[in-house]
Amino acid sequence: MHVMIIGAAGMVGRKLTARLASDGLPGADGIDRLSLVDVVEPSAPEGFDGTVTRTAADLSAPGVAGSLVTTRPDVIFHLAAIVSGEAEADFDKGYRINLDGTRLLFEAIRAEGQRESYVPRLVFTSSIAVFGAPFPDRIGDTFHHTPQTSYGTQKAICELLLADYSRRGIFDGIGIRLPTICVRPGAPNKAASGFFSNILREPLVGQPAVLPVADTVRHWHASPRAAVGFLLHAATLDTAPLNQRRNLSMPGLSATVAEQIEALRRVAGNDAVALIRREHDETIAKIVSGWAEDFDPQRAIDLGFKAESSFDEIIQVHIDDELGGSLG
Amino acid sequence: MHVMIIGAAGMVGRKLTARLASDGLPGADGIDRLSLVDVVEPSAPEGFDGTVTRTAADLSAPGVAGSLVTTRPDVIFHLAAIVSGEAEADFDKGYRINLDGTRLLFEAIRAEGQRESYVPRLVFTSSIAVFGAPFPDRIGDTFHHTPQTSYGTQKAICELLLADYSRRGIFDGIGIRLPTICVRPGAPNKAASGFFSNILREPLVGQPAVLPVADTVRHWHASPRAAVGFLLHAATLDTAPLNQRRNLSMPGLSATVAEQIEALRRVAGNDAVALIRREHDETIAKIVSGWAEDFDPQRAIDLGFKAESSFDEIIQVHIDDELGGSLG
Repeated sequence: MHVMIIGAAGMVGRKLTARLASDGLPGADGIDRLSLVDVVEPSAPEGFDGTVTRTAADLSAPGVAGSLVTTRPDVIFHLAAIVSGEAEADFDKGYRINLDGTRLLFEAIRAEGQRESYVPRLVFTSSIAVFGAPFPDRIGDTFHHTPQTSYGTQKAICELLLADYSRRGIFDGIGIRLPTICVRPGAPNKAASGFFSNILREPLVGQPAVLPVADTVRHWHASPRAAVGFLLHAATLDTAPLNQRRNLSMPGLSATVAEQIEALRRVAGNDAVALIRREHDETIAKIVSGWAEDFDPQRAIDLGFKAESSFDEIIQVHIDDELGGSLG
Repeated sequence: MHVMIIGAAGMVGRKLTARLASDGLPGADGIDRLSLVDVVEPSAPEGFDGTVTRTAADLSAPGVAGSLVTTRPDVIFHLAAIVSGEAEADFDKGYRINLDGTRLLFEAIRAEGQRESYVPRLVFTSSIAVFGAPFPDRIGDTFHHTPQTSYGTQKAICELLLADYSRRGIFDGIGIRLPTICVRPGAPNKAASGFFSNILREPLVGQPAVLPVADTVRHWHASPRAAVGFLLHAATLDTAPLNQRRNLSMPGLSATVAEQIEALRRVAGNDAVALIRREHDETIAKIVSGWAEDFDPQRAIDLGFKAESSFDEIIQVHIDDELGGSLG
């Protein structure tokens, strides 16, 4: 089986690559070829016996999608996107990468299929940014898409294209709307959502972190390990029960910042919690106030997608996967 | 005031042109220039004193959108589209005309605004085809978009683009989802929805008509006059109360075929009803069974949009506007 990951150098892409290299796809044939694509050359995974192709390419550039698809992967993970803040700051780049790049990929698959029968599984990472306030208490899968960013607009458009191309049998697509990923590994960044991870990740290693919003703020989370699990499951599940509703919100955990902090206290103690400094940032508070707080992901749960059920568990995943299993 | 209609040669476009020429825009400055655009040259309206420009052009062809927009219309009605059946039969043409043409128009407005401040009102005709079964009993404005045709997909994508471009202040857009237009004037056609009009229009002038579905079929209707009224209202209403939800389902009348027929009986008698021949068509019945039956258009009603409240009224509009006011 030949698996391609477009966006393989990103945080989720790297973790997905490692899992595919070590464990393959659950319930599927073994993987003998991994094609890793990103705008920078992705790293090769360790401990993989098959062929690895690593490509540095911009999916939105002429000819790139076509040349990728002529290798006829059985499964394509399309994770590549520029993030919300950049898509908002650079209108043209956002539409070019997040919309046109995706459409070029879809069209390349169509062209390859017209040449010779070809219907790959295509897993696309969408986002809860397709939803916009005002929200119901819990956002169900039948709630409409009124994104309040260009990024959310681009993801919502790609969802529509994915459903139409799948309906026509051009590929067998599934779009999964990821929760906010927590605990995000790496250095603190200035993304508006960054604090959700910073206030856990930094205190766990004895470093201070800033909390810019009230601890009553509620949001929707899943671990990086859960995100990779969603992708693996999406690559192998039977898509027939989806009917024409090919895009769905993933399960996650709805929690307040206060609940995050109490989980940190249980796992790492009062000293860790004392490293969180409250420093209100009106700009971040305003952005976050427009975000979704809770979802009803029953459809995804019924289809077998699984996420964490407590923040203690999310923190433990971080300790296991990033800190060697203990707090040292 | 300069008003442009793209898609001016279509049925709704011609009626809109005539209304603008005779009555102007309600509550707005007088119209001194009408720009009429379609793939075939639109007819000039009667009784209009201002300047009329008529252009035969394909909006999706290079340079066309830009040259239209450099004339800086204050209001742009974008009605141009290929219909559902054609967009389904010709994948490339559907996406080119219905998606790329619209996006080129939006981009041309953005380019013109970057040259010199320009924020026109843009009225876009969307469709209830953005919705797909299974439906709730009444489809509200917060129900998700899962189109089951490429046409519906293209309309849903344009709605998302319209909202994002409006949010960014590129234009002041509003998208209106038209009900099925009934009674559609002209000759019977083979559109799957054609019979809804045929079974009224033909018997009203003593001609036979075929009913291919059960008379329990329920659907969502508004007259051509109501559709023009929606467009005129959308061109002049205060868009501030829309917030970022720039697209909305128009009011209409939910009625069964049996209710249509009883209205015909009241207006034109048993002899007219006797001209309807029942001839079941499984293909049409199957297509129609996936269509929406009823909507909750409270948001549009609150914003001042108005449709008919009975099929007697819809038939009377046809008699007034197409048959000279009486049944001869």
